[in-house]
Amino acid sequence: MRELRKDPIISRWVIISSERGRRPKENQREDEDATVVESTEDCPFEMGRESSTPPEVYAIRERGTAPDTPGWQVRVTPNKYPALSPEGEPTLHEHGLFVSINGVGIHEMVIETPDHSRQLDAQPVERIALILGVYQQRIRTLRQDPRVAHVLVFRNQGTGAGASLHHPHSQIVATPIIPNRIEQELGGSLTYWQRTGHCIYCDLTEQVRRESEFVVHQRDGVLAFCPYASIFPYEVWIVPEEHAADFADADDRLLVVVARVLKTVLLKQREALGEFSYNLVLHTVPAPQAVEREFPSASTHYHWHIELYPRLTKPAGCEWGAGVFINPVPPEEAARHLRKLDVAAAMAGDANAREHPDSSPTNE
Amino acid sequence: MRELRKDPIISRWVIISSERGRRPKENQREDEDATVVESTEDCPFEMGRESSTPPEVYAIRERGTAPDTPGWQVRVTPNKYPALSPEGEPTLHEHGLFVSINGVGIHEMVIETPDHSRQLDAQPVERIALILGVYQQRIRTLRQDPRVAHVLVFRNQGTGAGASLHHPHSQIVATPIIPNRIEQELGGSLTYWQRTGHCIYCDLTEQVRRESEFVVHQRDGVLAFCPYASIFPYEVWIVPEEHAADFADADDRLLVVVARVLKTVLLKQREALGEFSYNLVLHTVPAPQAVEREFPSASTHYHWHIELYPRLTKPAGCEWGAGVFINPVPPEEAARHLRKLDVAAAMAGDANAREHPDSSPTNE
Repeated sequence: MRELRKDPIISRWVIISSERGRRPKENQREDEDATVVESTEDCPFEMGRESSTPPEVYAIRERGTAPDTPGWQVRVTPNKYPALSPEGEPTLHEHGLFVSINGVGIHEMVIETPDHSRQLDAQPVERIALILGVYQQRIRTLRQDPRVAHVLVFRNQGTGAGASLHHPHSQIVATPIIPNRIEQELGGSLTYWQRTGHCIYCDLTEQVRRESEFVVHQRDGVLAFCPYASIFPYEVWIVPEEHAADFADADDRLLVVVARVLKTVLLKQREALGEFSYNLVLHTVPAPQAVEREFPSASTHYHWHIELYPRLTKPAGCEWGAGVFINPVPPEEAARHLRKLDVAAAMAGDANAREHPDSSPTNE
Repeated sequence: MRELRKDPIISRWVIISSERGRRPKENQREDEDATVVESTEDCPFEMGRESSTPPEVYAIRERGTAPDTPGWQVRVTPNKYPALSPEGEPTLHEHGLFVSINGVGIHEMVIETPDHSRQLDAQPVERIALILGVYQQRIRTLRQDPRVAHVLVFRNQGTGAGASLHHPHSQIVATPIIPNRIEQELGGSLTYWQRTGHCIYCDLTEQVRRESEFVVHQRDGVLAFCPYASIFPYEVWIVPEEHAADFADADDRLLVVVARVLKTVLLKQREALGEFSYNLVLHTVPAPQAVEREFPSASTHYHWHIELYPRLTKPAGCEWGAGVFINPVPPEEAARHLRKLDVAAAMAGDANAREHPDSSPTNE
């Protein structure tokens, strides 16, 4: 069974997906060690093991290599244990207080590199920009599906962040609804825009820059900062300073800057925290059909950004039960700590890093 | 530093509490084993070790015993590492997009029993009812503080649920704001009431009873069910069938029924899941001063209840980053499983259980 269900009281959408329960680790408890696939022998994402994933839907590959064979640099495949199914039409069902949509959607894996152990912060900036570019391609393609209301990109790094595979990867989930958090952001930014005529993210980055205590890093029009009301210690947001609702519109120059800032932040976090687990999530505007329907002015008041949540604390009753997070590290302290860390040496390693080989996208 | 801060975009309150960081386990990672105080030797909640907690504010004790000495059955003390401070006045500060209230509030521990290892589901029903009665007492007392907008009661059981102490205990957090989730519930129930003239929880329990597939247990006017849009596998809500906004108004007869249903559900969950971690949270109406100010009709449209979240899955990027939970167990399947489990033998043990000794509340 795959179904999207709406909580009748707080209108929160949840994905009920019993197929998801077939994953090797799903019955894991939070208090047990996760059985992460660590060794290359068992890893389904290794070069040469392309048949252990569903057929690829997109790849950056060496010219002349065929889909689902070696020669790729970044490879996108359907998730083997998808939370949503690509089959069928999303239909709204109402039965008394129970509202559902059949679990239609697309769930993909982005295999970020053939290198089993080279995590995102150890990649050259060019490779990170390449991965961001792949996100853009998939967002554009998936939005063409009229059933899709929103495309979410996220990345779970480490067992503490819910990753079940070690090999560097991100996930893409295209849903027939606008996810709860994105809808809250759109609602908040709309209200602010109606009141002030401004984009709240533009005003926020301006205040953060002016007062500087929350700033972690700033470069070529991209700002990284610890948000004022961070829910997690060392949480960081990365926001383009120039107004832009849609990540898919970012040009190659901006992608390289974002990649550089993202790498800088991850290196700083690792320097501050040691080896750590984190979730990364890309917040961008919904698909045009959903924007048109629900937030027609979104391009004016919404603003794409990346949120990074290091997973150092264990949310409990207060967080789950009341939605109130207790964060033991004031974000201005985290920002001060991260700001002063010098990661220039680790970043400079890039200068000597090999460019990715002669590659071109295929299979779009 | 202790401060409540409001996210400028989605208006979510967070507690920033650097004092909280001084707890022995706070810098724990989610992917490490939590250093739970397991042995009675190190446990600050043992009988005879009353001086290792702040002075008690309430207790059920044997007649004639003095506060902070042995002889108690249930004991309430301020949290040694409180998220909020009982000193000062809550004042709203606005600075550009940054809105805060100084971190005023009350954070208490309810030590549920002198028995280090007897967790809630192993307690006699009478003891559980006694603990629920203590919650009521503290809710009533704390609401008399004009600075308090809401009193939240929750319970973290097991390291997977964020518990840092093994000895059976609950927590109470009185805040100068209405917690985010409670506010969402009040907003949802208000909207429904304005549209239909009904309490949504009353209509919901009626639909659940009528269709029965989500029912886990029902007894003497108290219904336990797996909610239609459960975010966690085997999540259960316990709701009084008769309309009542305020848990503090429940009479002793109802408390005993709720205790019996709660124990039954916990035993069923343990039978289904083995030893498991969970969060329990009590959702009741805010303090009169906050209700008056923000939801004057709350007693008509709100409805108190208990939510139980077994912690079997590890929320990751989709949950944290987009607010969309992926639940691999359809709640009707969980309900069917829990419903058919027979825990009568474990419940019957109660009949022989000793009543709690001649006790009376002190220190209120």
